[in-house]
Amino acid sequence: MNDVRIDDLPVRDELRGKSPYGAPQLDVPVRLNTNENPYPLPEPLVERIAERVREAARNLNRYPDRDAVELRTKLAEYLTDTSGHQVGPANVWAANGSNEVIQQLLQTFGGPGRTAIGFEPSYSMHGLIARGTGTGWISGPRNEDFTIDLAAAEKAIAENRPDVVFITTPNNPTGNAVPPETVLALYEAAQAAKPSMVVVDEAYIEFSHGDSLLPLLDERPNLVVSRTMSKAFGAAGLRLGYLAAHPAVVDAVQLVRLPYHLSAVTQATALAALEHTATLLGYVEQLKAERDRLVTELRETGYEVVESDANFVQFGRFDGEGGAHTAWQKILDRGVLVRDNGIPGWLRVSAGTPEENDAFLDAVRALKKEQSS
Amino acid sequence: MNDVRIDDLPVRDELRGKSPYGAPQLDVPVRLNTNENPYPLPEPLVERIAERVREAARNLNRYPDRDAVELRTKLAEYLTDTSGHQVGPANVWAANGSNEVIQQLLQTFGGPGRTAIGFEPSYSMHGLIARGTGTGWISGPRNEDFTIDLAAAEKAIAENRPDVVFITTPNNPTGNAVPPETVLALYEAAQAAKPSMVVVDEAYIEFSHGDSLLPLLDERPNLVVSRTMSKAFGAAGLRLGYLAAHPAVVDAVQLVRLPYHLSAVTQATALAALEHTATLLGYVEQLKAERDRLVTELRETGYEVVESDANFVQFGRFDGEGGAHTAWQKILDRGVLVRDNGIPGWLRVSAGTPEENDAFLDAVRALKKEQSS
Repeated sequence: MNDVRIDDLPVRDELRGKSPYGAPQLDVPVRLNTNENPYPLPEPLVERIAERVREAARNLNRYPDRDAVELRTKLAEYLTDTSGHQVGPANVWAANGSNEVIQQLLQTFGGPGRTAIGFEPSYSMHGLIARGTGTGWISGPRNEDFTIDLAAAEKAIAENRPDVVFITTPNNPTGNAVPPETVLALYEAAQAAKPSMVVVDEAYIEFSHGDSLLPLLDERPNLVVSRTMSKAFGAAGLRLGYLAAHPAVVDAVQLVRLPYHLSAVTQATALAALEHTATLLGYVEQLKAERDRLVTELRETGYEVVESDANFVQFGRFDGEGGAHTAWQKILDRGVLVRDNGIPGWLRVSAGTPEENDAFLDAVRALKKEQSS
Repeated sequence: MNDVRIDDLPVRDELRGKSPYGAPQLDVPVRLNTNENPYPLPEPLVERIAERVREAARNLNRYPDRDAVELRTKLAEYLTDTSGHQVGPANVWAANGSNEVIQQLLQTFGGPGRTAIGFEPSYSMHGLIARGTGTGWISGPRNEDFTIDLAAAEKAIAENRPDVVFITTPNNPTGNAVPPETVLALYEAAQAAKPSMVVVDEAYIEFSHGDSLLPLLDERPNLVVSRTMSKAFGAAGLRLGYLAAHPAVVDAVQLVRLPYHLSAVTQATALAALEHTATLLGYVEQLKAERDRLVTELRETGYEVVESDANFVQFGRFDGEGGAHTAWQKILDRGVLVRDNGIPGWLRVSAGTPEENDAFLDAVRALKKEQSS
């Protein structure tokens, strides 16, 4: 019995020999590897969460609001306030992290016999969730500088006729934003080819120099914008993702969502956080400044850096086979954990507190000195 | 734009014309339709939840424990204490409601090109989640009295060779438990046919006159027992489901689980509830007594009742086409919401507080009087 392994069970063939997704979680002083917000929630918000959860707990024997109407209303207000584009609760849907939002979208618009495309390197969960929902995955191209090669992308869409197109802006792990005109051109290409759903993943949009693409939703029922409270709201532990789209899209994902998928405590906590938006967006401004400092100082130290609109920076290059991984280990040896996303020559660092960023910059300066000596 | 409907979007063909799953939620004085626990959590537990969530909120900017180790340890202790069967954290996995547990199991062991069987009527989400994961669904037979017809069930397994077999005990919506020897025989049949995974859904086991089937896990790596905190723990709003199985099964579902699927607030709330197990199991004893009273008094009033090991009772019969639905409406007219699961001639009532059950019994007595006059 004790020597029974996964492969001894009747698991699906494509799962044999696989390992679970997830960044290594190491116990080091400075962790800048998962794009978390380094600022803990302010104490008044912590108290407000305890208060709202206490209230929700008094009714916890009942199922939660299946349609999360109050939460969707407040998320819609947040989107309207920050984008200037009118969004209502009928346009919004929420789930346990943007991963579950994407899973529901793929169950609705992808699935067996259908395909989805992303332009890689990008958020690797898009492809993993596609596979998990039986959706065929197409790895679309990118330029050497990590921008989207529009002509090549349009060609890939026309040739493959995918059912779902993912565009991540700002892109993860490279950090660069996709110009609105590129998104529009890809939407048009996707409609001409199939038509297919286009999912714009704006997980990091609050950190961008540019604007959200929410206004593009007008007159485009096959467009979806996905968002998260993990980054700008400093609530990665909450697992609250959401989307904005035409009300018909919201109706459609309700055909596949598990009933009562969003717990009463999650809804209560998210509502508390949405009461403190102004404070949390203040932290976003600090992080943007720190992100810009990382870009500047990395360049001054002699590193190449991809232009960043996110709360992280991709930097390099580390030459030679396994050069990035060797550098990752040397930075780790100095007590700073960054992320090796497997892109040859590059590593990714999340913007932390000023002190954390100083520790990181010290480490990479020492590394540069070591390499040039 | 405003007249765009679901079917105008590129949704999967099998979703066209469908409606979302879910019991009607009506605002009536006595709601006995979703098998919720009628007892609110005790105030000391409410305070403990607020306290643990406050603590978790101070770290909410970080991702939650991806593997929920502390929670799985406490769930394992609960299972060991209540079943006498030794269960460790490596045997346990938790997710957002038992629906997500079942979804993960079907993504791992079912999916496109594979099939699952359940013996119907049973928990309808098994079939719905199967369809949502692209798993073919086979509706297995039951006897007229809602027990499992072992010979017919064995034949269905041998002929269809399903990849996943669901056995719900106590069964929902009928309330009757499945004898352990039937479960064992079906497990053997499933191994001989394929071999396939057998999922024993024990959502209501704490209300049973009999014992949990956890001890059967020994030496049976293809067996899974699924559980929930929604019913016995009075925490439907929490959405915490879990499973017990061989550690290889726990490893396998981690290949399909969304990373960080279980929020820090959910983990904190569940841990608080597990500190108050003794009190909550006291409520279970009260509910069992009330359930037995419902059975007795329904029979005394002249209704047929299926023997119940759950916190609900299936009663009838209501003759004629739509007889059950007519009765459902008449009971609702008297301010009591029960559940019409679409089983001709039968309705289901959840055991509520003594006062709620009195109101229900008054309503069905009046209905009986009306019918016989």
